[in-house]
Amino acid sequence: MNGDENTVFIGKKETMNYVMAVVTQFNNGSNEVVIKARGRAISKAVDVAEITRNRFVPDADIADIITDTEEISVDEEEDRTTNVSSMEITLTL
Amino acid sequence: MNGDENTVFIGKKETMNYVMAVVTQFNNGSNEVVIKARGRAISKAVDVAEITRNRFVPDADIADIITDTEEISVDEEEDRTTNVSSMEITLTL
Repeated sequence: MNGDENTVFIGKKETMNYVMAVVTQFNNGSNEVVIKARGRAISKAVDVAEITRNRFVPDADIADIITDTEEISVDEEEDRTTNVSSMEITLTL
Repeated sequence: MNGDENTVFIGKKETMNYVMAVVTQFNNGSNEVVIKARGRAISKAVDVAEITRNRFVPDADIADIITDTEEISVDEEEDRTTNVSSMEITLTL
């Protein structure tokens, strides 16, 4: 796994914000960009990867997609946790 | 790609409905189950795969995850279409 410098974390912004972040990474010389998302943002992460490849960086391939389950705290005082799915999509030139 | 008999399509039902559908396929002797989703249901598809592996079928591995972009009709009379991301997650024993 690489560090965070080539990673785009998907959050609540519009999809195109994240597409532009990925495209910028490639334009700045990265050969690999990792798109990370959790929970409902996973669908948006797939949109970001697909739009990047189809419209902006046609040479980019999806080299790897991995999923995992993360335990996140929902109430620190009561030490309650819940599980959330996560995904990492690795795009490479 | 296999036929639809080992495929679970993710829709608007509760996540556990689809988990049970996948588990049932494995219990009926399938060695491979394909989980398919489009658009916002993609996040749920990942939940289904993760819950199936973590809680019910620990021997199941994610053999492959592929994404694609599909063109769907939004107005048949005016021939308007829009793009939607799709995902297929292949679980194998």
